[in-house]
Amino acid sequence: MRTLGINEIEDIALGASLLGAGGGGDPYIGKLMAMDAIKTCGDVTMMDPEEIGDDDLVIPIAMMGAPTVLAEKGINGSEYKRLYDMVSQFYGKEIKGFFPIEAGGVNSMLPIAASARLGIPLVDVDGMGRAFPELQMVTFTLGGVSATPMALTDEKGNTCIFETITNKWTEDLARAVTLTCGGSVCIALYGMDGATMKKWGVKNIITRSQKLGTAIRGIKQLDKNRTPEASFLTQTGGYKIFKGKITDVLRETTGAFNLGHVMLDGISEYRGQQAEVTFQNENLTATVNGRIKATVPDLICLVDTETFIPVTTDALKYGKRVMAVGLPCYDLWRTPQGLEMVGPRYFGCDTDYIPLEERLSGKENA
Amino acid sequence: MRTLGINEIEDIALGASLLGAGGGGDPYIGKLMAMDAIKTCGDVTMMDPEEIGDDDLVIPIAMMGAPTVLAEKGINGSEYKRLYDMVSQFYGKEIKGFFPIEAGGVNSMLPIAASARLGIPLVDVDGMGRAFPELQMVTFTLGGVSATPMALTDEKGNTCIFETITNKWTEDLARAVTLTCGGSVCIALYGMDGATMKKWGVKNIITRSQKLGTAIRGIKQLDKNRTPEASFLTQTGGYKIFKGKITDVLRETTGAFNLGHVMLDGISEYRGQQAEVTFQNENLTATVNGRIKATVPDLICLVDTETFIPVTTDALKYGKRVMAVGLPCYDLWRTPQGLEMVGPRYFGCDTDYIPLEERLSGKENA
Repeated sequence: MRTLGINEIEDIALGASLLGAGGGGDPYIGKLMAMDAIKTCGDVTMMDPEEIGDDDLVIPIAMMGAPTVLAEKGINGSEYKRLYDMVSQFYGKEIKGFFPIEAGGVNSMLPIAASARLGIPLVDVDGMGRAFPELQMVTFTLGGVSATPMALTDEKGNTCIFETITNKWTEDLARAVTLTCGGSVCIALYGMDGATMKKWGVKNIITRSQKLGTAIRGIKQLDKNRTPEASFLTQTGGYKIFKGKITDVLRETTGAFNLGHVMLDGISEYRGQQAEVTFQNENLTATVNGRIKATVPDLICLVDTETFIPVTTDALKYGKRVMAVGLPCYDLWRTPQGLEMVGPRYFGCDTDYIPLEERLSGKENA
Repeated sequence: MRTLGINEIEDIALGASLLGAGGGGDPYIGKLMAMDAIKTCGDVTMMDPEEIGDDDLVIPIAMMGAPTVLAEKGINGSEYKRLYDMVSQFYGKEIKGFFPIEAGGVNSMLPIAASARLGIPLVDVDGMGRAFPELQMVTFTLGGVSATPMALTDEKGNTCIFETITNKWTEDLARAVTLTCGGSVCIALYGMDGATMKKWGVKNIITRSQKLGTAIRGIKQLDKNRTPEASFLTQTGGYKIFKGKITDVLRETTGAFNLGHVMLDGISEYRGQQAEVTFQNENLTATVNGRIKATVPDLICLVDTETFIPVTTDALKYGKRVMAVGLPCYDLWRTPQGLEMVGPRYFGCDTDYIPLEERLSGKENA
């Protein structure tokens, strides 16, 4: 158990934004939401997953929709209480902890804001260890946990409670309502007991986000032995995929997703080479000179070549210089069950999944 | 209080199909649903609205979606119980009566089937006195009754409970889910106490449907004093708008609606004239030789020129000979509040509402 105050927020948002792999929302918006809640209502108590009782009700809370919409259509603050009431009434018991469904600039922050405003502990766990675009894409689905009952509310006060026969149906129905509500809503789903959360959750993800954020902010402090880039890669455990200047961005907001791709013209040691990164909220594939170098579920992150600050898919702009970095995904995503749910073929990319490390070492040709 | 058995169903379905004004679903499907339920579970007790206690919970139950879809994607029978459980759990009390939300071939029948299967009384009342395409278009909305909590289920077992800030939001969110569920679902909404139902409902609509059905079936029995057509018009209180052969049907299933128009080439005394009827599930306007002769909220019904059986918008076919008949709508729809909700302008028809009787008498030019 430890306390999260204003000072911790900046680093958590920054690190979570890297783990968002292009999605998970704008960390600036997320940061403001969490800071405002903490300023108004006080610090948040963050529990280690092991500190939660096996029978305690815990539930992830998140925003659903296109990050592009989220940037303009915020929340009004009453959503947390509404979701709490819907969930606790449904289960007939109080909620003992909120946690993020995914890591991302907004979705790591929203549970912190909710915890601050309602005085409920935050749990240091999530269901992805990164961000994914669809609701069923959580470790909990692999563990047989139902996404429903799911509570949804928009900022106007409309609400829905879903119960569905599969977690993919939860995604489909909630997505339709999200679109109708204007493209972005607040949700609580995958309510579960502490034992299940401990068994299937990606643990200590908020702490990991904070450490990554602290590291990124510290890169600029001179390290005689390493370049800033080498320092960034070492401290994040990242693999360099490409460095380039953005020459084209195609981005559509369709079905409450940001869909598109970004084209990069190589710089530095990549001069004369081309790369493409495709995305559905999150980055899906990275291709260099026509060869795939990384795919989901591994994390493909674009970061500013000078500041190493992650660039989300809704902030991609012509002319920006970015480094494409790969981070290995959570182990469970590399199992056959995990790859069936979030592997490249699910997203329409006709290639087998090969771990990032192998693709980059050239071993996949062996 | 009286009992509805197999014998009553045929006439109720036929008459309700006329009041459906082109919508409300295929009476053949509706009839089979109700008959099957009565055969399996026994007759239904139908209560007069006045027999319901002021504090008793009563609720309409209906199908939502495009009639074209409904014809192929039926219900599996478990929906009634699921809706009952959702509603009674939400209100914390038992449901004392089901009733139709609208008059129509399917939507007058579904509550009969539900009443039979669950052994709950049916109430002889509805919320439109005809069929309308959108959920908020009920007398209860004019009475300030909330459509929510609304329960929705599809035949697969997915469910939602909506609570919305306006009844139009109920329509919008439920429509999105209906589309995602394949275009047709079962719903229960506008739960209310008996007092409210008695104050705002369109009373004795099932009895009226039955009488209309009996009359239509009896037209063929020779009446020396009248032609069958005159007999039909007298007994239904209808106004003849046009008679013609269908020369064109444009029908799209969009947004879980049947949208389109039908073109008629005049026959008999209308030879050489042309008419057009537009529809959104239900018929919206009837225009003869370029002049509007009837609009919503008055009922525009197309009936077979020989059998006088109503033709729903999903059954319109090239070459069919039909009579366009107008029936005056329920009084409440002719008030400014009623016309704002269901008048021609709401449906994009740029004309003031003028009662059917005036338009046909030519008085609207006076």
